[in-house]
Amino acid sequence: MYTTVEETKTRITAAHAAYEQARDIDPRTRAAWLRGIAAALEANADELVALGQEETHLDEGRLSFELKRSVFQLRLFAEEVVRGEHLDATIDHADPTWGMGPRPDIRRVSVPLGVVGVFGASNFPFAFSVMGGDSASALAAGCAVVHKIHEGHLQLALRTGAIVEEALESVGAPQGLFSTIIGRAAAECLVDHPLVKAIGFTGSTAGGRALFDRAARRPSPIPFYGELGSINPVFVTEAAWKLRRDEILAGFASSFTMGMGQFCTKPGLLFVPENGGDGVSDILEQEVAGKPRRPLLSAKLREGFDGALETVRSTPGVKVIVAGDDSEAPRPTVLTTTADRVREQPGILEQEMFGPAAVVVKYQPGDDLTSLAGMLEGQLTATVHAEPHEDVSDLLSTLRERAGRLLWNAWPTGVTVSYAQHHGGPYPATTATTTSVGTAAIGRFMRAVAYDSFPPSQLPAPLRDENPWGIRRRVDGVWELPNVEGKASE
Amino acid sequence: MYTTVEETKTRITAAHAAYEQARDIDPRTRAAWLRGIAAALEANADELVALGQEETHLDEGRLSFELKRSVFQLRLFAEEVVRGEHLDATIDHADPTWGMGPRPDIRRVSVPLGVVGVFGASNFPFAFSVMGGDSASALAAGCAVVHKIHEGHLQLALRTGAIVEEALESVGAPQGLFSTIIGRAAAECLVDHPLVKAIGFTGSTAGGRALFDRAARRPSPIPFYGELGSINPVFVTEAAWKLRRDEILAGFASSFTMGMGQFCTKPGLLFVPENGGDGVSDILEQEVAGKPRRPLLSAKLREGFDGALETVRSTPGVKVIVAGDDSEAPRPTVLTTTADRVREQPGILEQEMFGPAAVVVKYQPGDDLTSLAGMLEGQLTATVHAEPHEDVSDLLSTLRERAGRLLWNAWPTGVTVSYAQHHGGPYPATTATTTSVGTAAIGRFMRAVAYDSFPPSQLPAPLRDENPWGIRRRVDGVWELPNVEGKASE
Repeated sequence: MYTTVEETKTRITAAHAAYEQARDIDPRTRAAWLRGIAAALEANADELVALGQEETHLDEGRLSFELKRSVFQLRLFAEEVVRGEHLDATIDHADPTWGMGPRPDIRRVSVPLGVVGVFGASNFPFAFSVMGGDSASALAAGCAVVHKIHEGHLQLALRTGAIVEEALESVGAPQGLFSTIIGRAAAECLVDHPLVKAIGFTGSTAGGRALFDRAARRPSPIPFYGELGSINPVFVTEAAWKLRRDEILAGFASSFTMGMGQFCTKPGLLFVPENGGDGVSDILEQEVAGKPRRPLLSAKLREGFDGALETVRSTPGVKVIVAGDDSEAPRPTVLTTTADRVREQPGILEQEMFGPAAVVVKYQPGDDLTSLAGMLEGQLTATVHAEPHEDVSDLLSTLRERAGRLLWNAWPTGVTVSYAQHHGGPYPATTATTTSVGTAAIGRFMRAVAYDSFPPSQLPAPLRDENPWGIRRRVDGVWELPNVEGKASE
Repeated sequence: MYTTVEETKTRITAAHAAYEQARDIDPRTRAAWLRGIAAALEANADELVALGQEETHLDEGRLSFELKRSVFQLRLFAEEVVRGEHLDATIDHADPTWGMGPRPDIRRVSVPLGVVGVFGASNFPFAFSVMGGDSASALAAGCAVVHKIHEGHLQLALRTGAIVEEALESVGAPQGLFSTIIGRAAAECLVDHPLVKAIGFTGSTAGGRALFDRAARRPSPIPFYGELGSINPVFVTEAAWKLRRDEILAGFASSFTMGMGQFCTKPGLLFVPENGGDGVSDILEQEVAGKPRRPLLSAKLREGFDGALETVRSTPGVKVIVAGDDSEAPRPTVLTTTADRVREQPGILEQEMFGPAAVVVKYQPGDDLTSLAGMLEGQLTATVHAEPHEDVSDLLSTLRERAGRLLWNAWPTGVTVSYAQHHGGPYPATTATTTSVGTAAIGRFMRAVAYDSFPPSQLPAPLRDENPWGIRRRVDGVWELPNVEGKASE
C-alpha cells in the first residue's frame, strides 16, 4: 500500500516536468483546469460523500457541505487567476529623473515556486485534504502538487486523487501535475527532495514541528506552511454576560461540539465573570445533551483526545461541570477553573483538547482580562463577546498580537473562503505569517522575479505594456484597473 | 565596547514597549517619523560620509550616493505608508448569497510583527546597514528595530544610530523604537529573544545560514530574511558576442570591479563563445587597468577573498588571463576556463569571490547554454546579453528558476529602489522568497489579521467603511483607488 521512496521520487520528477510545461500558460487555461477539477468533484459528489461517511464518522450533510466548499474554492481561485491578482504585476518604466538617480525599466511578476508537497488533515477530508485549500492554492499559483494522503480516509483520498488526475487529463493539463503518495517514508522523501520547493501542512503541533524542522534543515531550506494547533479563546465581558449569558452559553456549546470538537477553530476556552454563574452548568448540560454524537475520526485521534482531556481534568483546581463519558461516540465534557488558578497553572491555556471538550474560566469582577490574554500562545482565532460601545481596545490589541482572526460576538468555527479571510496566526498556531484559507493563500506558493531593461519582445505576457492578459497592474506607482472586457483601463 | 546580554535584553524590552505605543498610529504620523530620519541623515551627511571614508576605504562619491539612496528610500517608503499599500486592506461585507453559504462580514489588514532584529552588512555602510533597507522597511511596517552593528564601520554605525535615535525623539516617536547593539553575544541574544519577531540579515552564506538555523530552532521559530551570497552569472549569445564583444567586455570589467567587486550583485561569471576570443585578455587587461583601486573593506574580508580566489584559480583547467596582485589595493584578477571543464568541476559555479575577481567561461559554438544555466545554484541576478529577436526563452526560463532579477543587455550592479524592484532569489542567494530592496520589502515585517463580524465602532481605522485614512482597499473583490485628497473614490 505504501508508496516506495523510488516511486515517490518518480512522481516528484514527473510533477516537476509537468510544472515546467505548465508554469507559463495563460491564466484562462489555468482557470479552466481548476474549473475542470471542480466540475469533476461535483459530478462525483455522491460517491465521494458516501466514501467519506464510511471512513470518517462524519455525516452526509457535513461532508456534502465540505465538498461544496472545496468546489466553490476552486472556482473562486479560477476567477482570481484570470484577474491576475496573484501575479502582483508591477511596472516601473525607465525614469531619468528618479529621486536616487536614473532608474532602468524594471518590471516584477510573481512566478510559481515549483513542486509543492501537501499534507492532508484527517478532520476535513475534503476542505483540508486531497483537493483542499493547500492543493487548490498551489495549483492556482501555477505549481505542481504531490499530495501526501492522510490514512484516516485512505479510500476517499485515493478516489479523490484519481478523479483530480482524470479531470486534469481531460482538460489537457500535463500529466503529473497532481499526484498522491502514501506513508511515512514517502512523506519524508517529499520534504527532503530538492525538486520540492514548499510544503503545505495541516495537522498536529508535534508532527508539524518535526516536519518544519526537517524542511529547515535541508541543504536548501524551503518554506513550510504548517497549520498546527489552536485553543481559540473566547472572552466574555461583564456587560455582555449580564445581558446575554444564556445566548452566549448556547452559542459556545454549539461551537465547541461542532464536528465533535474536531475543528482547528474549536473554542476551547471561555472566560466569563464569576458572578451570574448560577445555573451555568445546567444550561451547558442541556445544550450539550441536544447535540448529535458520533465517534471521533480515528482511534489514534481518540486516544490523543482522551489523554489531553485527562491532563487538563487532573490539573489542580480544575473541576468537571458537564461530565462526558467514555462511549464510542463520547458525550462532551465541560471543565471549569478560575482565572487565579490559570495564573498559577498556565499550562491550562496551552493544552489543546482536539475533540468535544472545553474549559470555562471564571474571573472575578474587575479582573484584568488583558493580562489573562497576555498569557496565551499564538492562536488561529480569538473572540470577544462584548457590548458595542465598551472600550475593550487593550484586550483586542493583546489578542491581535496572538491571533490571526478576531471575532466579535460570533463563534470561530466555520471559516469562509473569501478575499479578506485570514486563517493563520503566530506560532504554534502556524509556522508562517500567511493564510491557508482564502484567495490570499495563493501567494504562498509564488515568488517574485524582476525583469530589468528587457526589450518588449522578450518580456513575459503579464509585463508587456499592452497587457495582453488584461490583468490588474501597478504602473509607475499607480494601479490600473482592468475593465470588464479584461483590458486595462487608462 | 560590546553590548552585554543584559543590556541587549533591556533594549529589546524597550523596543517592544515602543512598538506597542507606535503600532496603531496613523500613516501620516509614521511617514513623518521616516521623513524625520531622512532629514537628519541629510543634515549630517558631511560628517557621516567623512566617518565612512575613514572606516571603509570607500570613496566620497560612492558614500555620498549611498547616503542619498538611503534618504530617498525613507521618503519613498513614507509615501507608500501614506498610501497604505502595505496594509493590504481588504473588506468582504456580509453576503447571504455567497457561493459556499452565507458569509459574515470579514475584513483583513496587515499589522506589524513587533520587534525586528537587523544585521548590518559591511559592504554598504549606509544602504544595507544601520538605516538601510531592512531598518527602513521594518519601521515603515510599524515595527521597532534593534540593529546589530557591523564592526567594519563601528564609529559610523554608532553615529548613524545616534542621529536616528535623536531624529525619532525630535519628531515624537516613542523612545526605544530604534536602538543598536554590538557584538556576538548580543547578536545571539537578539535572534533568541522571545520578543523579537523577525530578523533581517545581509552578509555571508556561512554566517547567515548559522543564524537562520538558530532562528528556526527557537521554541517559537521566526522568519529570517537573509540575503547571503550570489555569483550573478552573465550569458552572452554568439550573436551578441559577434556584434558587441568589446562593448560587453568593457561593461563587464566596469561592473565586476565596481566598489572593488564587493557587491552582492557583482557579475562573477561571464559565459562567452570560444570563437572570437582573440584579444579578450588584452581588452580586459586594459579595461581593468583604468579602474580605481582601493583596499578591501576589512582585513577579514580580504582574507576571505584571497582564499576564494585561490580556490578557483587552483582548480584544474582554470587559467589566469588578467593577473591580479597582492598589494593592499589589489589589482583585479580575471580567470578563464571552458564550459566542458565547468561540467566536470561544477564547484567553479558555486564559489563566490567577494572582491575584484571574475571568471570568463568559454563555450563551444552551438553549446547548450540552458544546460549550463541549469547547473547554477540560487542567485540574486542572472543576465543575458543577446540580440532583441533571438529566441533565448529556454535559457531565460532556466535562469528564472534560479534568480530573483533577470537583466537584458545590462549589468547587475546597482539596484534601484522602486515599486517593481526585487532583490532576492532562491537559496543560497537568500533564505526567503521576499525582496530586501524596494517598497515590496515592507510587507516582510507584517502579518495579516482578519476582523470577523465586528461592529463599525470597534473596527480599526483602515477597515472602517468610511476609510478615514484614505487608503487603497479591495472591497467585495473590487479594488478602490484613493483619490488625490486621500479619500476613496466610488
